[in-house]
Amino acid sequence: MAARSGEFDLIARYFAPIAGRDPAALSLKDDAAVFSPPSGCEVVVTTDALVADVHFRSIDEPELIAQKVLRVNLSDLAAMGAKAGGVVLTTGYNRDLPEEWIARFAKSFGEDCAHFDVPLLGGDTVGTPGPTFFSLTAFGYVPAGRALRRDAARPGDVLAVTGTLGDAALGLSVLMGKLPDLDEKSAQFLRDRYWVPQPRMAESQSCMAAGGRFAAMDLSDGLAGDSRKICSASNVGMIIHQDAIPLSDAAKAVLEEHPDCWAQILGGGDDYELLITGSSRDISSLGDTVAVIGSVTDQAGQVILQTPNGKMAELAPDGFDHFK
Amino acid sequence: MAARSGEFDLIARYFAPIAGRDPAALSLKDDAAVFSPPSGCEVVVTTDALVADVHFRSIDEPELIAQKVLRVNLSDLAAMGAKAGGVVLTTGYNRDLPEEWIARFAKSFGEDCAHFDVPLLGGDTVGTPGPTFFSLTAFGYVPAGRALRRDAARPGDVLAVTGTLGDAALGLSVLMGKLPDLDEKSAQFLRDRYWVPQPRMAESQSCMAAGGRFAAMDLSDGLAGDSRKICSASNVGMIIHQDAIPLSDAAKAVLEEHPDCWAQILGGGDDYELLITGSSRDISSLGDTVAVIGSVTDQAGQVILQTPNGKMAELAPDGFDHFK
Repeated sequence: MAARSGEFDLIARYFAPIAGRDPAALSLKDDAAVFSPPSGCEVVVTTDALVADVHFRSIDEPELIAQKVLRVNLSDLAAMGAKAGGVVLTTGYNRDLPEEWIARFAKSFGEDCAHFDVPLLGGDTVGTPGPTFFSLTAFGYVPAGRALRRDAARPGDVLAVTGTLGDAALGLSVLMGKLPDLDEKSAQFLRDRYWVPQPRMAESQSCMAAGGRFAAMDLSDGLAGDSRKICSASNVGMIIHQDAIPLSDAAKAVLEEHPDCWAQILGGGDDYELLITGSSRDISSLGDTVAVIGSVTDQAGQVILQTPNGKMAELAPDGFDHFK
Repeated sequence: MAARSGEFDLIARYFAPIAGRDPAALSLKDDAAVFSPPSGCEVVVTTDALVADVHFRSIDEPELIAQKVLRVNLSDLAAMGAKAGGVVLTTGYNRDLPEEWIARFAKSFGEDCAHFDVPLLGGDTVGTPGPTFFSLTAFGYVPAGRALRRDAARPGDVLAVTGTLGDAALGLSVLMGKLPDLDEKSAQFLRDRYWVPQPRMAESQSCMAAGGRFAAMDLSDGLAGDSRKICSASNVGMIIHQDAIPLSDAAKAVLEEHPDCWAQILGGGDDYELLITGSSRDISSLGDTVAVIGSVTDQAGQVILQTPNGKMAELAPDGFDHFK
């Protein structure tokens, strides 16, 4: 294989054209980018790293990986109630990765940035003898003092989620060949949910527009574990009604044959739905944006699952297995 | 070896105490941090990734690596004329790295953040089967419209640098055992210059205070290659007077025995000094902050070295070798 282009060539060839769209990026020719938040807004900043075969499958299409890298970070902005402002991307390419892979990654990344109207402001491109990694830092803007936080939950609040839960974890099972009997339409749906997260930017802005007191976070590590993070930050507990958890038709099809997959739905990550708490009035104001799945209690740190048969048990951080 | 603590434990144990110092970090408990630039200022953002045994030696002390990770990014802020505002740090730890290494890294990183008065606002901690990597994104603040840029050089400007050049490249040679005859005091000085960059925050602020038209960048990849980046951005050329390049006593001691080390001084990276152009009046106003090493020409893209014997030759991007 011909020697790979140097770092500067890679940036110039694949990333500068994407970044050139925004004046803040200074065409990626400077040491840094410059931007300003809109008047009255604060800057929200988040960062997430993804390592090949830890956070994504290196055999997956580079187009899908690019979307995931961007979207998991946008999801963090959504969790804070922020509108996306810009991203900087660090890429560490394994030295044996073909340049064509990088070209496809960059093209898809640029298209997804355009889709979410978020400029690439800068970055760094390095080589590594190890697994390919990406580290993305995203900025967003939120009206001053109004960022959605994890510490705003209060006993008596209701607990709600966007979308459907568990699809991504089941999608990974499909990809790993663990659900061979599933119909292809359901399988495709679940794979897509694993591959391409849908950051809940619009739903997040619905919370901001509603103007209530909401606590929020995005479900990246699974409902069972992530719910504890709001509990910890807000010093509260939760009761989750298993029956109320919104499921896709595909997830329902899986559960019909494999009821033990509830463990993945409760404990599996990568859904990137929003978990939101607020007074019943505030949550009601969100309308069909969310589904209510439980309530907030004063039993600090206790996350209880109420099962369809009326039993209640502590929900272990990694899901269902430990208490059924 | 006992199993390493999980990601959340590592963050809680080692990084949350550092980040807890700044309210913007929300104690690292939220999805993102929130901050505001001072009134009238823009946000400058830069990111740099460092991979073990590519950008630093994995056998080096974690305390020194932590300082390097922070400082190479602060240097990019200095190059833009920005004051440091905050950093977010992504760490990808090789899974066999002892937790004690991480603890030492984090302690040193926190101390260096305090030294530069720059808060850790957030980050991500992941494991990797490959080499340890760090990706840091730094924010700074600069008065609106006044960031130092690479495209501001004009023919007739003079060219200046802070500090002394080549020390870091020679320090790496010392570490690799290539300069065994050097006295220990010089060797120690050069090693330190390789290990611990000194981001030129004060010198950068001198430029801002002087208020002239400056182009600036930091010398991370060596004078020969980096000078071309200002030439490219500003569509100019440069003449560099070899005799005028400021050298440390240690570098002079090396050159006495090894005159061929000029190639490293001109082409070697990791100095993190500032390369600045401006009118002779503007550069003069900086006083002893900088040393003048040449001038800016209208010969776009041509970087000429004038040697002590009066000869002039094109300076190759990687240093001296190709034209002597």
